[in-house]
Amino acid sequence: MEQKFNYRLTLSYDGTNYHGFQIQDNAVTVQEVLEKGLYKIYGEKIRIKAASRTDTGVHARGQVINYQASDLIPTHRVPYALNSVLPDDIRIQEGEIVSPGFNSRHDALGKVYSYTLDRGRFHSVFWRHYAVHIPFFLDVSAMQKGARFLIGRHDFTSFCSAGDKVKYRVREIIRADWEEEGKRVKFLIEADGFLYNMVRIIVGTLLEVGRRKIEPDKVAEIIKAEDRSKAGPTAKAKGLCLERVYYPVDR
Amino acid sequence: MEQKFNYRLTLSYDGTNYHGFQIQDNAVTVQEVLEKGLYKIYGEKIRIKAASRTDTGVHARGQVINYQASDLIPTHRVPYALNSVLPDDIRIQEGEIVSPGFNSRHDALGKVYSYTLDRGRFHSVFWRHYAVHIPFFLDVSAMQKGARFLIGRHDFTSFCSAGDKVKYRVREIIRADWEEEGKRVKFLIEADGFLYNMVRIIVGTLLEVGRRKIEPDKVAEIIKAEDRSKAGPTAKAKGLCLERVYYPVDR
Repeated sequence: MEQKFNYRLTLSYDGTNYHGFQIQDNAVTVQEVLEKGLYKIYGEKIRIKAASRTDTGVHARGQVINYQASDLIPTHRVPYALNSVLPDDIRIQEGEIVSPGFNSRHDALGKVYSYTLDRGRFHSVFWRHYAVHIPFFLDVSAMQKGARFLIGRHDFTSFCSAGDKVKYRVREIIRADWEEEGKRVKFLIEADGFLYNMVRIIVGTLLEVGRRKIEPDKVAEIIKAEDRSKAGPTAKAKGLCLERVYYPVDR
Repeated sequence: MEQKFNYRLTLSYDGTNYHGFQIQDNAVTVQEVLEKGLYKIYGEKIRIKAASRTDTGVHARGQVINYQASDLIPTHRVPYALNSVLPDDIRIQEGEIVSPGFNSRHDALGKVYSYTLDRGRFHSVFWRHYAVHIPFFLDVSAMQKGARFLIGRHDFTSFCSAGDKVKYRVREIIRADWEEEGKRVKFLIEADGFLYNMVRIIVGTLLEVGRRKIEPDKVAEIIKAEDRSKAGPTAKAKGLCLERVYYPVDR
């Protein structure tokens, strides 16, 4: 029998035209397009696993996937071969062979997401798919104060979509910072894992802090409540981007 | 008779989905969409003048237009009113009433364009419409040296599309700089005016310098030749962006 290798690819995509990552009926997803691309270059059906199942409209700069395949295509040629058959809103950045047991989803030690706000008086046409336009007053230093309370190991039930069936909701947030870049404000958040919609609910809550509807230290109380209804609304998908996934070998 | 005022608007657009600025048959242009928008808010046909007739796929951060209209809509409300009926890839940034004789095209003292290169190994999905992907080696310091020869008052016939009927081809370039921004390299060029395709031919020529096909000081000879065939190819439209237009009152 032909020997199979475990390939790990790092990729970026503009999520605007996709119904999220994961395969579903009657809607184009990133996974489907990637698997069709793999079929074109390997001539066989290949199933991929991904570090994160990003939602409709969510982007990625550093999504990680893995799949089993023969060494039909030399490893260093895999990104070129796959990119040549992919649409231009998905791009493989790196490819390598990893140990047979490597699983991009289960082996992830941590992830970094960004969330971008456009604070111009009118939205930037160049950021319209990648940032959420917030033309009204925002107290960014209050948002930064509120973000401080997220750092550490907590049960994040309050920041998890009510429908999520995951029972263990303790996660450790390592970093949560708002950075101003001209007319844009970018939130960078790193954790050992994220619950469903966690970043978007965190951003939705910190936006309430920015609008001074909630005091920054209320964030600590919201965490403690372990109750989704205490947090703010889920912020729009298009501002969110999976920046990076960390694995044991990376650090 | 109803009094007319001369409105000046500053606007940005993502040129990806337009066949350039100027109205034409059987193709959607920025001018057409703007004039349709003005019709919606004023209820009458209004013709606009623009500082620059950008080509298909060319973007703008600071295009300037002017038109004559009644004061039906208060000046400070014009950008909001027009934006509310425009597609999200065109956005009015500012609006004001100017002197009756102001003409956005003829009164322009100078313009600044940018041209962006994406030097990543694979193209960035987020810059795919706004930068030209150049994955091969480029000697940016040679490109900067070559750009120095453009500064000053010269006949730029060599950098003008052969079909251009403009006879007076002397222009003054005030600034021509390559700036590295991570994986992107941006060219900023300012002149008192530009000939047809001038920036794109300049960039196409400087790219030959970057590839070391032409020595930097050859740029001076190319200018002197006053011959389009001596310069490099016309660089792709999508990297080009009209950044700003200067008028006497601005400085």
